[in-house]
Amino acid sequence: MWPIFQAVVATGDTYVFSPTTTRQDAFTYWFGPGNTPYVAVDALRILGMYKIRAHQRDLGSHVANASFMVDPAAQGTGTGKALGQHCLREAQHAGYEAIQFNFVVSTNMGAVSLWKTLGFSIVGTVPKAFKHHQLGYVDVHVMHRFLNDG
Amino acid sequence: MWPIFQAVVATGDTYVFSPTTTRQDAFTYWFGPGNTPYVAVDALRILGMYKIRAHQRDLGSHVANASFMVDPAAQGTGTGKALGQHCLREAQHAGYEAIQFNFVVSTNMGAVSLWKTLGFSIVGTVPKAFKHHQLGYVDVHVMHRFLNDG
Repeated sequence: MWPIFQAVVATGDTYVFSPTTTRQDAFTYWFGPGNTPYVAVDALRILGMYKIRAHQRDLGSHVANASFMVDPAAQGTGTGKALGQHCLREAQHAGYEAIQFNFVVSTNMGAVSLWKTLGFSIVGTVPKAFKHHQLGYVDVHVMHRFLNDG
Repeated sequence: MWPIFQAVVATGDTYVFSPTTTRQDAFTYWFGPGNTPYVAVDALRILGMYKIRAHQRDLGSHVANASFMVDPAAQGTGTGKALGQHCLREAQHAGYEAIQFNFVVSTNMGAVSLWKTLGFSIVGTVPKAFKHHQLGYVDVHVMHRFLNDG
């Protein structure tokens, strides 16, 4: 999982982590309290991963939050879509009523498109909230999907 | 600060914390790593408080996030507005370029109105993301304001 994390954050165009993020920080992000991590495997190789957790505690705990990373070398293989579909099922089984993504970089067209395909919609756009490695400040989408109609 | 925290979360209509939140959890929320807390005082009594922190790490760290609580007994005294104005100044001094609130309960008209007065706008609305004690599931606003024009 660490090599995938490093490959994903190296480009500075989709995730908020600096390319110099430490292994310990990455470990905490994936395995810290409240997170449930999953991986996608092809034979014995990890292709991608996601984690799911409550978006908020207590009075906001009916909404899940999830984060995904796919090995850049595995892009185009349907790994993201498979993880997304798995996440929808797991979130439903866990009793969540919706999933919310807080930080979908607007220029990450692959992610925006994938989430729309899986039934998510953009419910908000925060202007210039992400410092893109090449493009400078770009907008960030909040995306959301109810689970009871899935 | 603990009595104000208890009074604010007791009603279950504005904050995500359960009325049964422990003192330790409240302490961590206000004084945990990355947070800078402030209080408003009238003589020697604390009337309200806010904290400011980076909304995201690294490539999102130019946006601040802040959270406010005002003693219900001090409502109508301008404490929230004074804290909000102080927060805008502190965020500017700290070098942030914007402030984002993630979880403004849509039925909390006082808060929505105050933030609009202070130049914030609603950039997103997450449907039914807060379980209101009396109204059931209600929407939550994401509100945002740039600081460079202030």
